[in-house]
Amino acid sequence: MAQHRVRFLPDGLEAWVEAGSSLLAAATAAHVAIDAPCGDRGICGKCKVRELSTPLSSLEPSTLPEQTLLSPDELREGWRLACQARVVGDVTIQVPERALQPAIVPLSQVEPRPAVRKVHLSLPEPSLEDSISDLARLRRDLGPELQSIQLDLPLLQALPQALSSASYDVTAVAAGDRLVALERGDTTLRCFGVAMDLGTTSVVVMLMDLLSGKLLGVESRLNGQANYGSDVISRITHANSGPDALETLQAAVVNTINSALEKLAQQSGVSSSEIYEAVVVGNSCMNHLFLGINPRSLAEAPYQPAISEPVYCRARELKLRINPEAMVYTLPNIASFVGSDTVAVILAAALQHSDEVKLAIDLGTNGEIVLGNRKRLLACSTAAGPAFEGARISAGMRATEGAIEQVWIQNGEVKTQVIGNVPAIGLCGSGLLDAVAQMRRAGLLAESGRLLSPEKLDASVSPHLAERLLKTDGNEGFVLARRGRRPVVLTQGDVRELQLAKGAIRAGISILLKEYGIGETDISEILLAGAFGSFVNPASARALGMVPPLPVERITAVGNAAGQGAMMALLSTDQREEATRIARTVEHVELAGRPDFMEQFMDDLTLGSIEF
Amino acid sequence: MAQHRVRFLPDGLEAWVEAGSSLLAAATAAHVAIDAPCGDRGICGKCKVRELSTPLSSLEPSTLPEQTLLSPDELREGWRLACQARVVGDVTIQVPERALQPAIVPLSQVEPRPAVRKVHLSLPEPSLEDSISDLARLRRDLGPELQSIQLDLPLLQALPQALSSASYDVTAVAAGDRLVALERGDTTLRCFGVAMDLGTTSVVVMLMDLLSGKLLGVESRLNGQANYGSDVISRITHANSGPDALETLQAAVVNTINSALEKLAQQSGVSSSEIYEAVVVGNSCMNHLFLGINPRSLAEAPYQPAISEPVYCRARELKLRINPEAMVYTLPNIASFVGSDTVAVILAAALQHSDEVKLAIDLGTNGEIVLGNRKRLLACSTAAGPAFEGARISAGMRATEGAIEQVWIQNGEVKTQVIGNVPAIGLCGSGLLDAVAQMRRAGLLAESGRLLSPEKLDASVSPHLAERLLKTDGNEGFVLARRGRRPVVLTQGDVRELQLAKGAIRAGISILLKEYGIGETDISEILLAGAFGSFVNPASARALGMVPPLPVERITAVGNAAGQGAMMALLSTDQREEATRIARTVEHVELAGRPDFMEQFMDDLTLGSIEF
Repeated sequence: MAQHRVRFLPDGLEAWVEAGSSLLAAATAAHVAIDAPCGDRGICGKCKVRELSTPLSSLEPSTLPEQTLLSPDELREGWRLACQARVVGDVTIQVPERALQPAIVPLSQVEPRPAVRKVHLSLPEPSLEDSISDLARLRRDLGPELQSIQLDLPLLQALPQALSSASYDVTAVAAGDRLVALERGDTTLRCFGVAMDLGTTSVVVMLMDLLSGKLLGVESRLNGQANYGSDVISRITHANSGPDALETLQAAVVNTINSALEKLAQQSGVSSSEIYEAVVVGNSCMNHLFLGINPRSLAEAPYQPAISEPVYCRARELKLRINPEAMVYTLPNIASFVGSDTVAVILAAALQHSDEVKLAIDLGTNGEIVLGNRKRLLACSTAAGPAFEGARISAGMRATEGAIEQVWIQNGEVKTQVIGNVPAIGLCGSGLLDAVAQMRRAGLLAESGRLLSPEKLDASVSPHLAERLLKTDGNEGFVLARRGRRPVVLTQGDVRELQLAKGAIRAGISILLKEYGIGETDISEILLAGAFGSFVNPASARALGMVPPLPVERITAVGNAAGQGAMMALLSTDQREEATRIARTVEHVELAGRPDFMEQFMDDLTLGSIEF
Repeated sequence: MAQHRVRFLPDGLEAWVEAGSSLLAAATAAHVAIDAPCGDRGICGKCKVRELSTPLSSLEPSTLPEQTLLSPDELREGWRLACQARVVGDVTIQVPERALQPAIVPLSQVEPRPAVRKVHLSLPEPSLEDSISDLARLRRDLGPELQSIQLDLPLLQALPQALSSASYDVTAVAAGDRLVALERGDTTLRCFGVAMDLGTTSVVVMLMDLLSGKLLGVESRLNGQANYGSDVISRITHANSGPDALETLQAAVVNTINSALEKLAQQSGVSSSEIYEAVVVGNSCMNHLFLGINPRSLAEAPYQPAISEPVYCRARELKLRINPEAMVYTLPNIASFVGSDTVAVILAAALQHSDEVKLAIDLGTNGEIVLGNRKRLLACSTAAGPAFEGARISAGMRATEGAIEQVWIQNGEVKTQVIGNVPAIGLCGSGLLDAVAQMRRAGLLAESGRLLSPEKLDASVSPHLAERLLKTDGNEGFVLARRGRRPVVLTQGDVRELQLAKGAIRAGISILLKEYGIGETDISEILLAGAFGSFVNPASARALGMVPPLPVERITAVGNAAGQGAMMALLSTDQREEATRIARTVEHVELAGRPDFMEQFMDDLTLGSIEF
């Protein structure tokens, strides 16, 4: 097969690649680190580069994702997405600085400094000449740093047997300020931890190797508390509905986590008893419920949390199925409705170090918004509702196999990208956002969000699209996919749910800008984060007016930034301290009861008239 | 009633008292602090003073206890026991310096500095202007010393309800480095703790007011582990006899403690949930079993303990029925068979500060012996057997109601002092020692310990005593009391048990003197301690040769010195640090397997020929 030379500017690095290779693959071969948060799925828009050939003929024609994320002018000027554009001839590529700067801190940049430390000890066996206590024998060889470390009772109870059965050849495991276990032989190269992001709807568990800093596996689950209400208010209400209700909710989320842990342990060949550390982020209500603390005060004036501080406890206290003595660390919350997940987003996006003002939005059942830079950070929370996580959407589902995650409408055709490349069975958050944006662009939705009936459609709308408009039992809808067992339909109600969500977020952004005393144009970058498993298309978010109309390359979908922040805090105690500093310094802006927020919200409900 | 003036030299302090008052009462009235460890029971011999009248006619004639503890020469010279001698005229009394110096540190000399601290907080209720977290609200008013104190999960879980139900008027309870409870209202004046002395046979629990340093009550119980063997070796064997055996033994001693705690709480009007601190001493095996740590290695070469260090844990971890979050602190052990009870004896006797060399013996199922002064302390342990605690003695019992605690044989009569002044039902340790010593003096026992048959008695022995000699079914004995339902008989076997016990102790003393490089005459004072509830008569101990033949006023019975040391450590964290220093510096002398010990032991088995 033909080989082509790809040269990357400004560094001048080169690689020879086979015809048909993507520019992203060529960059990797040339050791040019282009940031591509969404992988190569053509969603995040972060890997925007420019072909410098004249004419523009060294790359295959633009793909559908490129046509969505790039403007016609940009395409004419040679702008492409590195993950989409495929090489057909020798070519020189200009990489803008933005594409080289990671939008969120890569794990490889976090120096592992875990709270778990392992020390291998080959202790001399006791003799009549050396008959000090087992504990003193252990301490004598632990080294100056750990010599005075405390052991809790369960380990003291296990000590004599642990030492003698291992012939005094053991690995001591320290977590935080405690020695938590003795393992037989030398296990210093096996050191594992889990990071968790507890959302109202989704729970994400990440298993990590704490020595290499590598992610070993991720499991996402529907939060088992979902049976007790879809939002935090209904959870709080349930928690106070009976004597055991709080415990039931606590057990529900722990069971969800345990199920994910079991799968992760199986897949990675790590025993759950080898996991000695867990770091947890989540919204304030999830934090309270996870710890078994009644979250009632979050929802009652004056809305103070029971705790906002970081908490250390043991896995056994929570019935978490990792090593029972493992330390569990919950990151601090900022306010009653701005939780440690937002702290983790700030940590992952390094907003506390940024010179420029950035806007980060964590999409979930609550939409948390952070605005600012290293000098000042503001945060607020909006009740966006669970639309982004597939709840309250007629064909909604979490971002798992069968979910439509991207939608394009072009030339009378509806194209979808389905997770797992199977027939579509539903629609996840990113697909919902795409669908509404594309339907609006295709003239199927009025500015008000009203789904137009076939007779009211503009003449330019293709009759193929008009055919997809349905009306059954007064329920209007649009058929997105018909290949599966049942067609996937977006209903008028679904559009309304999305309008409420995006309106709340845009209004929250407006209030933060007002409080900060800056305008939309002062924002250098917008980060769209979400824990729900997929990447939101920045072009769709902008088109719907959910975010200010910045150039699309300055809007980046970064996936589960809160999870990334949790992993950073798991990897390094320095990052935990940083998180505590962040939680203390972020200013919380309360939106509830603000008339200016309500007014802005009403204004922002419409779908807007912004062009793609 | 007539009043008499009593003047005490050397200070010249005076008091007017009614005729018939004891000198001890007069001394109290005159503010002369004569040390009387046994109270006013005429056992310990510590309150020896001298009447300076000529003729000696201002006091009632000497009592039986005085005739036992003082020599005829001493009585002629006017020496008396202040607790026994009663005033019948104006009198001047010489108080020797020794009687003014407490043999063990009085609790009143320990400055309370408990690990439990209480802080009353009247917190402002949350408002929209002041909606910080419950935890931050609590910390804000805790004061600089406690501001960063950690809360364990159970208290965090209880926090919101504890604050709101008390209208934010609470008392925070800190124990060690943790906040352990919030009490409603101001409870700062209620601050309680328990000290425990865990013996192989007896368990003693002491409830204290940690603010005043006062002892509120003492309860003594037979250790519930007694069903599983009477000595530590049989307990260790049982602990390893099956999968749950260790837990069974742990539960047994905890149940014993809980039963004592329940009674103490009832009697004193203290709720067990108000007890936030426990300090525990005991021999090394009891320490291990109490903590649920297998003591097997104590009994197998090379005899290393699992732990000798102090341990902190929570009451709930041990199922101890005080506040579940209370801190439980076990004092450090010295060696496998010299436990924290010996550390506590040293602490109570302040041996680590003494300029003079003293000898302290803790009588129990194991007899621990300490010799030395502030420059050097040696300790050893002898398997004295449970004779002093009433076990393996045919009429043996613990020092409770109905137990003969003192015996005098004079003029053909046997007089006994019975605890509770009821008909005798058995014999406790001090009574056993007295009985054998008195029988030997009365010519009823040969030097070998053989109980003489009536026909072999010296002609001078009263026929009334000869009548008390029994022989039934080959079992020889001597009737000590016949007023009760059944006569209380001391058998030949009982005498043998005592001989073994006292022989082991005297041989241990000899080895310590040898290791120290000093002789018996270098000992300035002998302290006889015991946790079994009664005071050993120093004269009897000396007469039987259990201790070196020092003048009787230099041998003092001090009761449960280990318990006293535990109370000191409960009252003051400084004392705990002192205990840790003591445990580190005491030199342990291993007696097991020493041929010189065995030889000495064989020599010391006889009852000796020492005159009273």
